[in-house]
Amino acid sequence: MLKNDLLEQWDRENFFHPSTHLAEFARGNLAQRVITGGKGCHIEDRDGNRSLDAFAGLYCVNVGYGRQDIADAIAAQAKELAYYHSYVGHGTEASITLAKMIIERAPDHMSKVYFGLSGSDANETNIKLIWYYNNILSRPKKKKIISRWRGYHGSGLMTGSLTGLELFHNKFDLPLAQVVHTEAPYYFRRDNLDQTEEQFVAHCVAELEALIEREGPDTIAAFIGEPVLGTGGIVPPPEGYWSAVQAVLDKHDILLVADEVVTGFGRLGTMFGSEHYGMKPDLITIAKGLTSAYAPLSGSIVSDKMWKVLEQGTDENGPIGHGWTYSAHPIGAVAGVANLKLLDELNLIDNAGAVGTYLNAQMTDALLDHVHVGEVRGEGMLCAVEFVKDRGSRTYFDAADKIGPQIATSLAAQGVIARAMPQGDILGFAPPFCLTREEADTVTAATLRAVKSVLG
Amino acid sequence: MLKNDLLEQWDRENFFHPSTHLAEFARGNLAQRVITGGKGCHIEDRDGNRSLDAFAGLYCVNVGYGRQDIADAIAAQAKELAYYHSYVGHGTEASITLAKMIIERAPDHMSKVYFGLSGSDANETNIKLIWYYNNILSRPKKKKIISRWRGYHGSGLMTGSLTGLELFHNKFDLPLAQVVHTEAPYYFRRDNLDQTEEQFVAHCVAELEALIEREGPDTIAAFIGEPVLGTGGIVPPPEGYWSAVQAVLDKHDILLVADEVVTGFGRLGTMFGSEHYGMKPDLITIAKGLTSAYAPLSGSIVSDKMWKVLEQGTDENGPIGHGWTYSAHPIGAVAGVANLKLLDELNLIDNAGAVGTYLNAQMTDALLDHVHVGEVRGEGMLCAVEFVKDRGSRTYFDAADKIGPQIATSLAAQGVIARAMPQGDILGFAPPFCLTREEADTVTAATLRAVKSVLG
Ligand SMILES: Cc1ncc(COP(=O)(O)O)c(C=O)c1O
Ligand SMILES: Cc1ncc(COP(=O)(O)O)c(C=O)c1O
Repeated sequence: MLKNDLLEQWDRENFFHPSTHLAEFARGNLAQRVITGGKGCHIEDRDGNRSLDAFAGLYCVNVGYGRQDIADAIAAQAKELAYYHSYVGHGTEASITLAKMIIERAPDHMSKVYFGLSGSDANETNIKLIWYYNNILSRPKKKKIISRWRGYHGSGLMTGSLTGLELFHNKFDLPLAQVVHTEAPYYFRRDNLDQTEEQFVAHCVAELEALIEREGPDTIAAFIGEPVLGTGGIVPPPEGYWSAVQAVLDKHDILLVADEVVTGFGRLGTMFGSEHYGMKPDLITIAKGLTSAYAPLSGSIVSDKMWKVLEQGTDENGPIGHGWTYSAHPIGAVAGVANLKLLDELNLIDNAGAVGTYLNAQMTDALLDHVHVGEVRGEGMLCAVEFVKDRGSRTYFDAADKIGPQIATSLAAQGVIARAMPQGDILGFAPPFCLTREEADTVTAATLRAVKSVLG
Repeated sequence: MLKNDLLEQWDRENFFHPSTHLAEFARGNLAQRVITGGKGCHIEDRDGNRSLDAFAGLYCVNVGYGRQDIADAIAAQAKELAYYHSYVGHGTEASITLAKMIIERAPDHMSKVYFGLSGSDANETNIKLIWYYNNILSRPKKKKIISRWRGYHGSGLMTGSLTGLELFHNKFDLPLAQVVHTEAPYYFRRDNLDQTEEQFVAHCVAELEALIEREGPDTIAAFIGEPVLGTGGIVPPPEGYWSAVQAVLDKHDILLVADEVVTGFGRLGTMFGSEHYGMKPDLITIAKGLTSAYAPLSGSIVSDKMWKVLEQGTDENGPIGHGWTYSAHPIGAVAGVANLKLLDELNLIDNAGAVGTYLNAQMTDALLDHVHVGEVRGEGMLCAVEFVKDRGSRTYFDAADKIGPQIATSLAAQGVIARAMPQGDILGFAPPFCLTREEADTVTAATLRAVKSVLG
């Protein structure tokens, strides 16, 4: 790349970056990093710095950077036909093929895919479909959605309401009224440290039942959850959690939305998190891993049970009033097809399971002895290290001390990217599925050094 | 393309198409059309049928199909770096360059661009920014958004609420409470046929003032409008409308959002509709024409006035809690850069103005005499023909007669694609900017034949 020396100035003057301190950025007080290329687990910037990206972008570049098969597929589609819409029965070979490939891979009881662009818009579609469904079934009051504290489901108005994190609510007047939150299945952060995992699950379920009773079961339409809490802290569920929740939902005729934006297409070492934990969702949200981020594409996978009611709805009311201009965009669709093929051909989901297990074991070995490490946890190619001020009393550092961000910064200085999760001092890892054992060792060693440099 | 004979079956069995009668499609009773390529104003399907696309996809393929410059730019970016995120000061040469190109082209008082994927999510971002802005200014009650009946601003929960069309509200429990609607500036459909255009504008403004007084000016945060009503019927505003509205908004300190998803980047023959009508927006929504749909990309352009308050907000509260994983996606950004260059190099915006004017004149000449044509109207490369049952008494056909859809179908059978707008019998045209006068003649002649075949 030719070095354009004005690029950083243009950036400060014109570009509104997400999740950024806008004033500090505009004043030139924040790092600017212009990324120029990548290969496997590594990215490179315009100054020639290379980093091992142990967060795969935003846990999305699952097959790794620089996959020429996907780039070639995108290039060919762009030359042939970059765009046509998919309204009223239109499609392209890529979008139809991808729909079929998704349903083949999804749990047996899933029927159709609606395509969007982002994880957020797919959850937006889900809420619309849930409300439509209950209107068609003549249950106009059954509309509230239960989400969990620390869940992440997007950054829109309704999807940011589903999200159960302060950063996404503060100053935005969220959550909106139709969303209610229940306890996060976060065993490490339970109030009562004496509880066993089993007792804690019973507690979560009792809280859920109490919420449903308080609101009235006939007002609750759906429950949404990530199989493993992601942005809320990378927290696998306590043993037995999902089957216990499923039983409550079934009892009250409440739909289940499995938000698999992070876990879908292999991150847990299985195709979907729903299989991994025996969930039986009515809707599955997919995005990130669907294309490994090579092009924007998301989806809502709809179950047979819901689809039948949607058909009834259009028989009664005509065409469904829902659509995005770029639904099933051919560039995204062809990237999805090439990405799912690559996952199979290179056996990347098995590698995610195997090397993910290795990474978790190494990280546990290296870090769990540290006096300020409270927990090392993970599942498949997801891993988190949570820091505490005092282990015995389970007290936390002050957020203003920015322990998590400091450790992430120290790690970045060593050329390894991890993410300081937004709520609590938690370092998150979600590498590409092609991570090798040697790269896992590099990440672990660098993490230990970073932790020591910040916490002694 | 190899002919995959199972494609149509896969399509029916797996693909949830937007704006489609789901049951009829699944039963195989609706047309399925698999698009395989395009060039200029024409598309081609897998059966070898060619059509002149006089709606440019969904008024988005503004530079026309098959532009190899944009395809090459996408191909090169996909090979170099398909994705990295833009959170916390990260970027790519493409995204930074595009931000600068947009601000150069936007009205003088605009400051920064936030990138999204769809027009809907850009309007979602806009509402979040408006609420944040008024919270930072300590006006917690100033949150309602005024939209117009027949406006189209998206298909999400809040954005579908902004949309003022029945199809997008029915069975979805929309509009939500924070949105209130005012009169559409639709002179042809005014209640009082005796009103002059000037009187009608005064009436619209009086309705707006009355709404603001009823709700309380301190509860109204913003007004959103398309410079020219699009999906609601392709209706240019009556003379003087925008300056009269602007005065009311200024008086009550109400922000203006110009939704330029259709009009932005040239469709009216000028870069933005805001300039065209002398609007002074605080936010401009962009999507479609930004990339000519070659890749999904949208944006919210933020004014200096709002940006200052957003900076104050992050100084007071830290990083802004808003972001989409695919914000400023490199593939979309590079498509945007190539698209804006092409608009300049081929002088396509001037062509949109000139040939658009010609198309409108030809269409008026050919159709206005027809007894069932109530109006032919347009602006730049937008044109609409509205049908009436009786011209004198200004009565309309029954929606169940599907006059608009029948004419669109007849036109399609002649190889010309126009859109039957969803509310009223209105045929809409929004061709690519590269339309030639000969192609405009073809469209006009085919339209006349279609109208005669359906209405005699
Ligand atoms: C579980 C989950 N759902 C939804 C989203 C929202 O996806 P997007 O950022 O593409 O809107 C995310 C993004 O991180 C996510 O992790
Ligand atoms: C004026 C306007 N705003 C917003 C949108 C929504 O854009 P999208 O379909 O990309 O969500 C549209 C789409 O037609 C539009 O015409």
